[in-house]
Amino acid sequence: MQGLLKYILMSKSKYNTSCPSGFPEFGPAEERIQTQWLSIIQETFSTNGFLPVNTPLVEREENLLGKGGNPKEMYVLKRLLDQDDNQSHTGNALRFDLTVPLALYVARHFSELTFPFKRYAIGPVFRGERPQKGRFRQFTQCDIDIIGSEKLSFLNDAQVVSVIIQLFEKLNIGKFVVRLNNRKILTGLFADLKIPEDLIKPTLSAVDDLEKIGEEGVEDAMKLLGLDKAQIHSILSFTRLKGDSETMLQKLEKFHSHETFTQGVEEMRTVLQGLSDMEVNPTRYQLDFSIARGLDYYTGTVYETKLVGHSKLGSICSGGRYDDLAEVFTGRKLPGVGISIGLTRLLSQLFAEGIIKPDRASPSEILIIATSKNEMSTSLKLGQELRNQGVHAENYLEDKKLSKQFDYADKLGIPICLILGENEVKNKTLTIKNMKSGEQKEIPQSEIFKALNA
Amino acid sequence: MQGLLKYILMSKSKYNTSCPSGFPEFGPAEERIQTQWLSIIQETFSTNGFLPVNTPLVEREENLLGKGGNPKEMYVLKRLLDQDDNQSHTGNALRFDLTVPLALYVARHFSELTFPFKRYAIGPVFRGERPQKGRFRQFTQCDIDIIGSEKLSFLNDAQVVSVIIQLFEKLNIGKFVVRLNNRKILTGLFADLKIPEDLIKPTLSAVDDLEKIGEEGVEDAMKLLGLDKAQIHSILSFTRLKGDSETMLQKLEKFHSHETFTQGVEEMRTVLQGLSDMEVNPTRYQLDFSIARGLDYYTGTVYETKLVGHSKLGSICSGGRYDDLAEVFTGRKLPGVGISIGLTRLLSQLFAEGIIKPDRASPSEILIIATSKNEMSTSLKLGQELRNQGVHAENYLEDKKLSKQFDYADKLGIPICLILGENEVKNKTLTIKNMKSGEQKEIPQSEIFKALNA
Repeated sequence: MQGLLKYILMSKSKYNTSCPSGFPEFGPAEERIQTQWLSIIQETFSTNGFLPVNTPLVEREENLLGKGGNPKEMYVLKRLLDQDDNQSHTGNALRFDLTVPLALYVARHFSELTFPFKRYAIGPVFRGERPQKGRFRQFTQCDIDIIGSEKLSFLNDAQVVSVIIQLFEKLNIGKFVVRLNNRKILTGLFADLKIPEDLIKPTLSAVDDLEKIGEEGVEDAMKLLGLDKAQIHSILSFTRLKGDSETMLQKLEKFHSHETFTQGVEEMRTVLQGLSDMEVNPTRYQLDFSIARGLDYYTGTVYETKLVGHSKLGSICSGGRYDDLAEVFTGRKLPGVGISIGLTRLLSQLFAEGIIKPDRASPSEILIIATSKNEMSTSLKLGQELRNQGVHAENYLEDKKLSKQFDYADKLGIPICLILGENEVKNKTLTIKNMKSGEQKEIPQSEIFKALNA
Repeated sequence: MQGLLKYILMSKSKYNTSCPSGFPEFGPAEERIQTQWLSIIQETFSTNGFLPVNTPLVEREENLLGKGGNPKEMYVLKRLLDQDDNQSHTGNALRFDLTVPLALYVARHFSELTFPFKRYAIGPVFRGERPQKGRFRQFTQCDIDIIGSEKLSFLNDAQVVSVIIQLFEKLNIGKFVVRLNNRKILTGLFADLKIPEDLIKPTLSAVDDLEKIGEEGVEDAMKLLGLDKAQIHSILSFTRLKGDSETMLQKLEKFHSHETFTQGVEEMRTVLQGLSDMEVNPTRYQLDFSIARGLDYYTGTVYETKLVGHSKLGSICSGGRYDDLAEVFTGRKLPGVGISIGLTRLLSQLFAEGIIKPDRASPSEILIIATSKNEMSTSLKLGQELRNQGVHAENYLEDKKLSKQFDYADKLGIPICLILGENEVKNKTLTIKNMKSGEQKEIPQSEIFKALNA
């Protein structure tokens, strides 16, 4: 029936009203979840001292390209009327991440900012990729970054882990683990294994693919790079190390002493000490030498977050430490550490996998129903009293039969109806109905707040 | 000094890092206010039963043009690499308001929606206007709309007024008044004055300009339209009517009886009755026959909101009733009523006029300070305990002198510092310092929550 209705509606319109390919939107019930998430995310970032930053969605094209924007995926803006005239090209493009805008923001506001500068940003970014499952051309990212001036303590890297853990505990989607590594530990180990300088980054990339292509795939990739059997064996065996963080570090320290490695271990110990001092639940994070992260610019700590039992999802929150946020824009050394959550992708996956089941569309807790026009005045007064106390309560305002009004509550998933009929108004009572159980009882209007709090 | 610093920084960079013209951003202190506002706005809409809707920022070009998008101001998207090749034109453009996307959303989700469908939308829209003071190419709008199926009670129009009043009371920017009118009252009066059918819309537009160009200006405009002296006199005298709503309506009813007028009066009485039943503060709204609103598609109630004593700001929240949201897309009659707040413009004006004075950048209520590395562990533990209880508390993590740490709190406007020195750690105490008064006292660490709640 719904399918048929849709067909009739569509045939009446000469417009294709569907979302442009790669630009999805959530339906009402999904969007209610997204809104709740955004508010939890924002509150968690804010509780940890991050400032909100909201940069324009549009930046100068050369600034985006200057920091690694992929020109094939970049959307530039033109005015419609001038579309055949290249003069009209505005020189501006849509941002493709929140990091380049952060760098530009720091350059623009440098003298107003206090360092370490902790900011969060939540908003849409755009990539003109070929649309495919789980890939969108517009998607919402949620980022935090801490930017130091010249130096930045590795306790900040611990703080970031703690934020991830606070956040996913509140979002309550199941058991998760933040996996930690430090790039210097890996590159120090590679150097100790006499892997040539120019092969260190490609070897990192190979390790990064471990989860995707498995040990054999990584072995093949390393062979192709020209690594020998002993080197490959060593690398694979330390990516396999598991267990207590301190024990893992001590094991490696027995055999390795490269300066970079030692520095990485020291940085990691600061992070682990910070986490321990904050009494962060130790089952929520673990040292994992197989984490490398794809992005070139990470130089120290790297993070990935996995939802236990759902490896298909990949990392649900990743990031790391970098030496230089914005030198190209500011002429200054600004080390930082940050993470990013790809909200649109993550929520889409959680809905698709049934990990989150959106159950209702409306934020209303209460629908107030007048059985006829005569009770509307009392209904409006009651509704406003509830709203004035912050209760999510709405009045049904149309002149419709009772069954239609209950339908409205049912379809939107509003859990409670307050019914005002002739008798109720006369007796200054109301009937309170639990829409799930069907249970209902009459109470004095004056006791409504007591009844709702019970 | 700050100016000099900026100059040095800029000269080091070959990039122009400023925001593209017409795409502004707020600094940290302003952004904190914007974030607070957004959360109040969202909560108010949500308390009144509006569902969050978040449509893509990008829609099909023909759908935007189909509903009145101005092609001169519309931004279309192209891929950067293909910019000289018209094939690469994506056929998509950035939305210019939140109403056309609502219409498309209703068409897309028709079978999932429950009517009356109440939604709010908060997000950026784009217009390629010539940048000028108070005009932006990207700005945030906050809209609510209630969409009926076939019919929609005028009590909804009252509900919308109540939402405006709840909102601006919470935003607390001073005395304001929602001015109400109904287009049918005006057009009925015009018809009664024998103003020809084809002059009714231009006459409405002339009335709409009253505040901008004054009575003389409007008189001239009406003369140009061909209205005679008596007609002009009548129109101007009823736009001047002030006072109690019911008295105003009765005054007009004595002399006028056109069917459209009578219908408008009846609709307005429903709105006023609803407001009275909800016991909405009557000083917050008034009937005003000089309100017409520019947009063509309003057919009944129209709203404007003025901040008393700041007529320069214009209307801070406007909207109205329309007969048909999306017939072109859905083939159905969907009457609606809604309002819109131009958030970016409004906040910019409030900052510029000094009506809001952003005083601090950080959301943190507390900075926890360790006087040396030795106290860091205690500091981290305390900070985490506070955050776990939802207190906005951050740790200063860098190894810096005490004065630098106080500087950080000062510059960000963090009101309270908790200081942990050697003695404090030994005695399990902490020193609590009020950053405004400079007052400080030592308390047991175990009494921190009590002290903060005091």
